[in-house]
Amino acid sequence: MSAIDRLMNAFQVLPGVGSKSAQRMTLYLLQAARDGGLQLANALERAMHDVKECETCRNFTEAPVCRMCLDPTRDKSMLCVVESPADVLAFETAGGFSGRYFVLHGRLSPLDGIGPEDLRLDQLAAEVPKTGVQEVILATNPTVEGEATAHYIAQMLKEGGVSITRIAHGVPLGGEIEYTDGGTLAHALQGRRTIS
Amino acid sequence: MSAIDRLMNAFQVLPGVGSKSAQRMTLYLLQAARDGGLQLANALERAMHDVKECETCRNFTEAPVCRMCLDPTRDKSMLCVVESPADVLAFETAGGFSGRYFVLHGRLSPLDGIGPEDLRLDQLAAEVPKTGVQEVILATNPTVEGEATAHYIAQMLKEGGVSITRIAHGVPLGGEIEYTDGGTLAHALQGRRTIS
Repeated sequence: MSAIDRLMNAFQVLPGVGSKSAQRMTLYLLQAARDGGLQLANALERAMHDVKECETCRNFTEAPVCRMCLDPTRDKSMLCVVESPADVLAFETAGGFSGRYFVLHGRLSPLDGIGPEDLRLDQLAAEVPKTGVQEVILATNPTVEGEATAHYIAQMLKEGGVSITRIAHGVPLGGEIEYTDGGTLAHALQGRRTIS
Repeated sequence: MSAIDRLMNAFQVLPGVGSKSAQRMTLYLLQAARDGGLQLANALERAMHDVKECETCRNFTEAPVCRMCLDPTRDKSMLCVVESPADVLAFETAGGFSGRYFVLHGRLSPLDGIGPEDLRLDQLAAEVPKTGVQEVILATNPTVEGEATAHYIAQMLKEGGVSITRIAHGVPLGGEIEYTDGGTLAHALQGRRTIS
């Protein structure tokens, strides 16, 4: 197989990239961005080899323990449990949370054979009393499996004397009530707060 | 910069990839396809280093002369001039042409400072008499610049005693006349053929 065909095939490992996009990427790099292509090759190799899971929070990092876990300015009393590293990035981009995270790398899904041991819930259970956590915020996705995972973790941690909370569900900012689905509206009503 | 941030930046060299897609690609490879990521790194490095332009047709190849130019079964009497390697792939996928190609890697564009020497039209002029070409098919795009490029090449080659043709413009297969633009319809009428 020629180097060009090999590259067109290799690009299709990426999510959302089919044969036509792979062809466009390959020809574009060859025509206009060979340096960029080499930098990408280099960055890929380094990341695939060096990036591991943080020993305490399981987020991706090159060091044994990630920068966020080592950061003394972050609030050790709050631990936010999320499904994936992308969720950590979303919360960090949004701002407003200065505690630490725990990344499950998935959600409970008996049909796919994903149980508590795959999510290392034992590690989470061990981590909580160790570091002085006072509140565990369950920020799994509002899907059936995400809710089940949150419920399981809540049950698991309820004897530990820490406060366990769930992120709020409701009408998203900029959303219109007219077009919001019934399940979300029911949650929005249920979670209503006194404002004066 | 961490290996993850570096990879997220490096992905944005690709056409159609912004910061959000780059993040998705990075996290996907780290979570689910490290082998695929390493293969992509390897394929990228090899292609960026090894792929050059064919000495006779200027298409991309790893050898000094590409396989299509060396293929004895291809018709040396027909030469199809195209703007880019992607156009060669489109013609080859469509089938129906068994001659050779010449790739311009662009089109004449005085405003962008792209002149005949950038497209190596001198190499094209030298190639035509050398290899027994009898027909040069001008398959540049039907844009203002593509037409001007075709016109320039036709003028350049007209003394050489070869037949010079232009691909047909007209209503595309599966297109509807009702929704076809006026310029295309004018071309379709002008290029009408007797069918019985």
